[in-house]
Amino acid sequence: MANFELMRQLTRAEGGKIILLVLDGVGGLPMEAGGLTELETAKTPNMDRLAKEGSLGATIPVRRGITPGSGPAHLALFGYDPVEHPVGRGVLSALGVGLGIRDADVAARGNFCTLDDNGIVTDRRAGRIPTEEGQKRVDILQGIEIPGIETRVAVVKEYRFVLTLRGEGLSGAIDDTDPQVTGEKPLDAVALDGSREATHTAELVQQWIDEAHKRLKGHEPANGVLLRGFAMDPNLPKYDDIYKLKAACVAVYPMYKGVSRLVGMDVIDTAGIETPAEEFDRVASVWNDYDFIFCHIKKTDSYGEDGNFDAKVHLIEEIDAALPKLLDLNPDVLVITGDHSTPAKHRSHSWHPVPLLLWSPALHMPDYADSFGERACYGGALGQFPATDIMPLALAHANRLEKFGA
Amino acid sequence: MANFELMRQLTRAEGGKIILLVLDGVGGLPMEAGGLTELETAKTPNMDRLAKEGSLGATIPVRRGITPGSGPAHLALFGYDPVEHPVGRGVLSALGVGLGIRDADVAARGNFCTLDDNGIVTDRRAGRIPTEEGQKRVDILQGIEIPGIETRVAVVKEYRFVLTLRGEGLSGAIDDTDPQVTGEKPLDAVALDGSREATHTAELVQQWIDEAHKRLKGHEPANGVLLRGFAMDPNLPKYDDIYKLKAACVAVYPMYKGVSRLVGMDVIDTAGIETPAEEFDRVASVWNDYDFIFCHIKKTDSYGEDGNFDAKVHLIEEIDAALPKLLDLNPDVLVITGDHSTPAKHRSHSWHPVPLLLWSPALHMPDYADSFGERACYGGALGQFPATDIMPLALAHANRLEKFGA
Repeated sequence: MANFELMRQLTRAEGGKIILLVLDGVGGLPMEAGGLTELETAKTPNMDRLAKEGSLGATIPVRRGITPGSGPAHLALFGYDPVEHPVGRGVLSALGVGLGIRDADVAARGNFCTLDDNGIVTDRRAGRIPTEEGQKRVDILQGIEIPGIETRVAVVKEYRFVLTLRGEGLSGAIDDTDPQVTGEKPLDAVALDGSREATHTAELVQQWIDEAHKRLKGHEPANGVLLRGFAMDPNLPKYDDIYKLKAACVAVYPMYKGVSRLVGMDVIDTAGIETPAEEFDRVASVWNDYDFIFCHIKKTDSYGEDGNFDAKVHLIEEIDAALPKLLDLNPDVLVITGDHSTPAKHRSHSWHPVPLLLWSPALHMPDYADSFGERACYGGALGQFPATDIMPLALAHANRLEKFGA
Repeated sequence: MANFELMRQLTRAEGGKIILLVLDGVGGLPMEAGGLTELETAKTPNMDRLAKEGSLGATIPVRRGITPGSGPAHLALFGYDPVEHPVGRGVLSALGVGLGIRDADVAARGNFCTLDDNGIVTDRRAGRIPTEEGQKRVDILQGIEIPGIETRVAVVKEYRFVLTLRGEGLSGAIDDTDPQVTGEKPLDAVALDGSREATHTAELVQQWIDEAHKRLKGHEPANGVLLRGFAMDPNLPKYDDIYKLKAACVAVYPMYKGVSRLVGMDVIDTAGIETPAEEFDRVASVWNDYDFIFCHIKKTDSYGEDGNFDAKVHLIEEIDAALPKLLDLNPDVLVITGDHSTPAKHRSHSWHPVPLLLWSPALHMPDYADSFGERACYGGALGQFPATDIMPLALAHANRLEKFGA
């Protein structure tokens, strides 16, 4: 595992420049036993050359056998063990829908639910209303005024939404208001500890709930709210502190921008960008300003979740074809990997170790690989290792680490 | 990681005999992509036979990406995680120059510096005087008498030296006196905690500094001293306690003798010994007296640091040719590995996993290896694993570990 104290002690402020290219969910599986994976099927002459010159390995995002969500998987890529440094679900959900989280904000996940005339929950998911109906309710709740704080809501999907509170002296130590069963009233918002901040926040949350229920009256089946997963910014140590890196994120989706911001990266504007080639051009446009750039491509994961093996293969080929845009920048270290596997065969995130290619112009560990793919990576020179070790390896290859001890 | 309590609980007092042969910095890299490493290039028929019969693997000395110094790297080989069991820089430096460290000694690293007439530091490195000039100053400071303690100094290299204090009731909790900048006076020696021992030690150190400055007057540019990295023996648990092994060290260089002594090994006299064959003869001469012998060969590392690929190759071949001297002892377990990698291409210690060969007459894990080299080791039967696991593996093959649990 990365050890922040060790990193702080050993990292140099000077050194080479690093690109971490994350193809979300790139890890795959053969559709039939003995077949090839998505990455093995794709024709990737550029990555194959880098594989020959560099070192391959496979990373374990959280622990063996554990399937990660996108937030924890990215924290691991950035060197933060997501088990030791949990980020609250409310915060991850807020980041996922683009509600920025500042140091003192509190975020919670919400369900719209159905309440009867006595305020009893009769459906915890409000008949699974479609997203546009969820959006209508969110519009109704937007801008509820609670003295001293600013509240925001955003729809996630269907009956799910996110609530954030911004103000002074708030706490995330608030218990869920979701009773988890029907036939009971929503629970009151109560503090989980005896701090003044938690007591105060619980009162504010209850005011918000009461006002929400007032406004939603008559909007059956989604006329109530249930909140859970209250959390604040985990105050992770930042990239400039632990790694001495000026770091930026080039990503299109809000979740990845949000997680990058949590670790202190600058988030580059990507408005209007759609293709990998356009993302790589954006990396090039800010290349001179940073030591480290995290570039995130989402749709490898989306096609995996769709079970669309061929579309995932074609996207990987498109990424490979655009790769010279990054290579022309002459990075000192280029890491190509995923945050987790999303095999088209599984149609979902999975626990399988993630292919990783580490290339730098010198000091590679030699192996026998001549292409970038799962089989070559599982037996590659770097072995199978925790994703949290990617950053120390990248820093070592960028000549950014002092020797440990005499 | 090795777990001392587990080792204490499971180790047997009886069992086979183990040789740990450490070729310092043996791990290497190809000089050009696709080429062979030093170890792969060397013609090593004896090691290749052992590789075929035994198991290969690759060890991670400290953490992935971390380049270790010699002290921490050897602690890891001996089963002590150097991050969890740090040995102070002063102690490692003292061991490195052959100043033995006993339980109650305090050691510090020193710089000769230049002071102006007002006692202000004008050069923290005294114009980087050559080693012979450093030695002259060390001779001047040798034997400074402070009531109740014995002081010793030794030159490290150029302007660097080591100071040790021996006496009763000392503490290593003393802050650096190096102001880290020029234009200021050296800092006073002050205690880092409120203990009587630290306060007392700080006073003694300040007396030593005052006397040193008196003696160095007129010896510009090296007319002052700056001290840092004060430390004491870390009191590591010893080999006979945790492993139930009577252990000895056959090494030529002081650092390796010193670290071996820290973990309770007997240090065998190696005066006059130069070649690997002579070292192996020395191992043979004490073979009947010990359960475990650590044999250290330094110059693989030296040639790596020189960037001398061919000399490193030839030395590995010389070691291989002498290896029958060890094999003729019929050890129950022979481990051949390095403390870290020192690729000639890198001319320096590096972070790359270290080739390891584990041979014993029986119970090997089979693999496909037919020679001892990096590629074979990275993908060997033992996988890639922390160097702190070498001792449990060696003990297991020597039939020195009880079953864990019923």
